[in-house]
Amino acid sequence: MTALDSTAPVLVPPVLDRCRALVRPALSEAVGRLHPWVGEMAAYALGWCEVGGAPAAAPGGKGVRQALAVLGAEAAGAPGRAGVAAAVAVELVHTFSLLHDDIMDGDAARRRRPAVWKAYGTGPAVLAGDALFALAVETLAARPGGPAAVRTLSAALGDLVRGQADDLLFAARPWTGPEQVRPEEYRAMAERKTGALLGCAAALGAALGGTAGRTSAALDRAGRHLGVAFQIVDDVLGVWGDPAVTGKPVHGDLRERKKTFPVLVALRTPVAPRLAALLESGADPAAAAALIEEAGGRSAALAEARRHLAAVDAALAAAPLEAGAAADLRSLLDFLVRRDL
Amino acid sequence: MTALDSTAPVLVPPVLDRCRALVRPALSEAVGRLHPWVGEMAAYALGWCEVGGAPAAAPGGKGVRQALAVLGAEAAGAPGRAGVAAAVAVELVHTFSLLHDDIMDGDAARRRRPAVWKAYGTGPAVLAGDALFALAVETLAARPGGPAAVRTLSAALGDLVRGQADDLLFAARPWTGPEQVRPEEYRAMAERKTGALLGCAAALGAALGGTAGRTSAALDRAGRHLGVAFQIVDDVLGVWGDPAVTGKPVHGDLRERKKTFPVLVALRTPVAPRLAALLESGADPAAAAALIEEAGGRSAALAEARRHLAAVDAALAAAPLEAGAAADLRSLLDFLVRRDL
Repeated sequence: MTALDSTAPVLVPPVLDRCRALVRPALSEAVGRLHPWVGEMAAYALGWCEVGGAPAAAPGGKGVRQALAVLGAEAAGAPGRAGVAAAVAVELVHTFSLLHDDIMDGDAARRRRPAVWKAYGTGPAVLAGDALFALAVETLAARPGGPAAVRTLSAALGDLVRGQADDLLFAARPWTGPEQVRPEEYRAMAERKTGALLGCAAALGAALGGTAGRTSAALDRAGRHLGVAFQIVDDVLGVWGDPAVTGKPVHGDLRERKKTFPVLVALRTPVAPRLAALLESGADPAAAAALIEEAGGRSAALAEARRHLAAVDAALAAAPLEAGAAADLRSLLDFLVRRDL
Repeated sequence: MTALDSTAPVLVPPVLDRCRALVRPALSEAVGRLHPWVGEMAAYALGWCEVGGAPAAAPGGKGVRQALAVLGAEAAGAPGRAGVAAAVAVELVHTFSLLHDDIMDGDAARRRRPAVWKAYGTGPAVLAGDALFALAVETLAARPGGPAAVRTLSAALGDLVRGQADDLLFAARPWTGPEQVRPEEYRAMAERKTGALLGCAAALGAALGGTAGRTSAALDRAGRHLGVAFQIVDDVLGVWGDPAVTGKPVHGDLRERKKTFPVLVALRTPVAPRLAALLESGADPAAAAALIEEAGGRSAALAEARRHLAAVDAALAAAPLEAGAAADLRSLLDFLVRRDL
């Protein structure tokens, strides 16, 4: 039995709460500078309020990116508060990207609530995303110091958008044949779409914490591999995960014909024609899941995730990180991508 | 007869062509760094190509913002090329904002062609706008030098988004009563939505040209007033302009129930109830136009535009600008907002 079958409750590491509490005042202050109408949409997207402004019943995001920024500063030997501007910027960018991605992907729900575009309309959701994006840049640019931080953020923004473009285009490509999506292409997409901002968060925190060069580069590399691992584990859960734990419908990703990593691997094996037909018809996702597993898609995905987690470890081991922060970083990684894969 | 009735061809000042030629290589290079699919949407939005990538038959935008950035640098005594990074950034931001605004406003056409969201789909258009936004920040941040330029751009971005939020919310407010949109609110919206980026363009060019403080501030102020004047003249043309010159349908803004400046002024006079009924029904835009003119809406709008143009002149006169650039700036302003108002 692997962790992915387990229904044991995952313990949220205290570091997430600690970092959220540290960042929240600055994040609230930044969001408070938005146009009030746009500010409500931002607060809704952050899980702080319901439509109309009443306090939220639902929990917000885990705050992984803000925690990485704070821990990046601490890993550099600075107090966590040195990373707060980075934490605010990456959290705003993450919120912007969820908001716009839900429009592009037509996803009507996010964290068990209507997506912003469903709750407020597409036009307002586009605007709210733009406002969060501008606010992220403004927050980081307003900080005293060199322009390197803005360069780091804008490079991650570019990657984020490129990854999303790849992801959108993958949907239009055929299951098989020379135009099929190769697992390597998926990996590059996941690194851009998910890894770049995770890496940027930690590297930016470290940079604001006063270190540059080797430590920042190592944290960026760790974050990028973490992003790929996280995405692939998410894909495995999207097919074989327990809906009670994941909160997603059984075989949801198969029903939506998503070109996830285990699917792409299985499509490189002799079962490809049968699998493609099953996926295309969408009639029997359980049979498709069984065929993907039979073709080695599940085990290859887990092996790939493990490879990227090993690369995360290697990157962290190669950098001189403050011990307490390094331990917190590891507890966060364990929580994000269960190590007993 | 005022210029607004004239059908005499408006002479495009050579400064626009000169600046476009100077900026084009860097702008092409920046757009070339985008994901190829996103790059095609950007090139389409810039008027460089048709859907599919064939060279464009339609002309692109005038390139006012890039010209202001180049002239800002020249006004500071630097060669125009010093302002090119600023020109690229503001042109990318402008293209981003047109792209997203057309989605929000549901405008299906732009420069007599289908808007990007009509030609490529809403999701891809959201993505292309995001990519242009990220590229603008990246372009400016990549430039050696202090972070002040990014701060100037991000402040303008914030204003742009706030102005668009106001504009969207104005549409939902009543024609009359305590909730009606006041002309002062319209002015603030136009300054943010149109003026902020014009001011930013010239100020950023001057800053990259090596001057800061008084000259940059004066150019920013001039650009902001220009934006308000331009917007109000556009409003007057949207009701009384010659479709052969404006390329817009007669009374188009009235048919679309837009809360433009002349309308808002007329709604503060005793004709308000009659005018509100006419505007609401939309049945007789010619009668609405006549009533707005009778109530002084047209003349008040022209007076307001003249006031802002005088403020542009005052701002330019107060700053130490290189003479040739100052002359070019004035020819550009004359072209944008005909002076014989």
